[in-house]
Amino acid sequence: MSRVLLTGASGFIGAHALEQLLAQGHTVDAVARRAGTPGLGVRWHEADLLAPGAAEELAATTRAECLLHLAWYATPGSFWAAPQNERWIDASLRLLRAFGEAGGRRAVLAGTCAEYAWGEELLSERSTPLAPATLYGACKHATHVAGAALAAQLGVSFAWGRIFFLYGPREDPQRLVAGVARGLLAGEEVPTTDGLQRRDFMHVRDVAAAFVALLSTEEVLGAVNIATGHAQEVRALAALIADEAGCPERLRVGALPRRAGEPAVIVGEARRLTDEVRFTPAIGLREGIAETVAWWRARLEADADARGA
Amino acid sequence: MSRVLLTGASGFIGAHALEQLLAQGHTVDAVARRAGTPGLGVRWHEADLLAPGAAEELAATTRAECLLHLAWYATPGSFWAAPQNERWIDASLRLLRAFGEAGGRRAVLAGTCAEYAWGEELLSERSTPLAPATLYGACKHATHVAGAALAAQLGVSFAWGRIFFLYGPREDPQRLVAGVARGLLAGEEVPTTDGLQRRDFMHVRDVAAAFVALLSTEEVLGAVNIATGHAQEVRALAALIADEAGCPERLRVGALPRRAGEPAVIVGEARRLTDEVRFTPAIGLREGIAETVAWWRARLEADADARGA
Repeated sequence: MSRVLLTGASGFIGAHALEQLLAQGHTVDAVARRAGTPGLGVRWHEADLLAPGAAEELAATTRAECLLHLAWYATPGSFWAAPQNERWIDASLRLLRAFGEAGGRRAVLAGTCAEYAWGEELLSERSTPLAPATLYGACKHATHVAGAALAAQLGVSFAWGRIFFLYGPREDPQRLVAGVARGLLAGEEVPTTDGLQRRDFMHVRDVAAAFVALLSTEEVLGAVNIATGHAQEVRALAALIADEAGCPERLRVGALPRRAGEPAVIVGEARRLTDEVRFTPAIGLREGIAETVAWWRARLEADADARGA
Repeated sequence: MSRVLLTGASGFIGAHALEQLLAQGHTVDAVARRAGTPGLGVRWHEADLLAPGAAEELAATTRAECLLHLAWYATPGSFWAAPQNERWIDASLRLLRAFGEAGGRRAVLAGTCAEYAWGEELLSERSTPLAPATLYGACKHATHVAGAALAAQLGVSFAWGRIFFLYGPREDPQRLVAGVARGLLAGEEVPTTDGLQRRDFMHVRDVAAAFVALLSTEEVLGAVNIATGHAQEVRALAALIADEAGCPERLRVGALPRRAGEPAVIVGEARRLTDEVRFTPAIGLREGIAETVAWWRARLEADADARGA
């Protein structure tokens, strides 16, 4: 049991990570722009980590043993090219240095599959070249490069979890799985691309659990793919959602063109996560999609009730 | 002829770059913490680029077409591990974005051979892995990664000149060539390591000229070694200095231990610089060392005169 400083604690992954850290008996200093639900073992800190001095003050006042840094600019669509990406390099490095100087011992930061040169069948931490095609991927990778050297100098054990594709309840409806589920359940026709792209999807609760496992496995250093190692065709995933929603006829596969330059396959080799962190995802895709569709169904019904009331 | 924004304009390389830019007819906005010599074609800006808003204001007021960004924390010894390295990532990216947003067209930034995984006989931009062993190297590389993506997004032509080893008049006497020359001329015994390390040395005027050439060669993008491609044993270099100083007997080769982990060879492949930038160093090592020793001799005599006066 440790004292953990968790950033992005009200985010899609962060909210699940917070639950799991608390369930494992850790004490959590949870950081978000707005405090979340109070509870046993959690102390909320309202902070904008991009504000001058915010990261330093947070690290100095919390003096945590472990840092799980998930916060970053993540607005769907715009996050790929937003200038906030550059600001988050600086905020992340400030936080890491202040954490290490305050006596912190173990830090895990969130990276991305967009750091890799896309194209290989299986993106590997050990062998795939790092050549990000986007500002988001480049700024994440820059944080990794500088952060690893900084942590080594500070004597902080440092790991970097590369996130692939994720889904689950409470996802932003501008993102793939949530958008398709919500649209179909709302009675809309949902157009998709041909869906022949293959991606590595993991349920957000598994992603959060993988990060918590990585945080606890202090001997594992450097980049670790938070990935299943399995390719999933996007059209098969969409069909699964439509089946669960009970309206496969409203899914219009192939109605949208693919984005230019979109890679055919983005799948992460999972050997480090499996063999070194000893983590295996618990939630199968069918089960996870069923839960997600059920969550959206309940959410839309609650919204309708609220409008009717 | 262009309008060039030059940072680090009073530094070891920057001062020579400024002279050469002016000689080629460019108009230069020269940035340093203290203004240098006024002259035709140069406008000095006193600024600390690490201060909030400084980079943005500079780019907005100068509206230069070209940016040659040489400024960084460079105090001998401490620069390898100083926290200023992290701050310079941020300052460099802010400057690059503001430059691009103000209409800038071509940017060249200074990188380092310390970005490479040392060990190979010839460090190549195309094939050598980038695995910096120091905070300095890591923060430079992080700037490269994020800067390249940012420039691509802004439509700025971007190149990154990786500096190897340099020497010449006005070098800080805490650095190798200047320290040996100054010590010997001052009548001291000068201890060195066994000197079997091989390094790629280039005269500072050639380094500055290479950067100016790279700035003008807008079709060359990405990392370019500012290197000769030739290995020079450090002990042969020291012997050359001692010969010029006329006191080989005061050089005590082997009296110091090598630093732990110091690589045997750090030499850069020069093919991009030669074939694409079409730059070849003009100053041979013997000639360059002779000039440097003569400069230190004049400097020490001037100092002695000043003390005697």
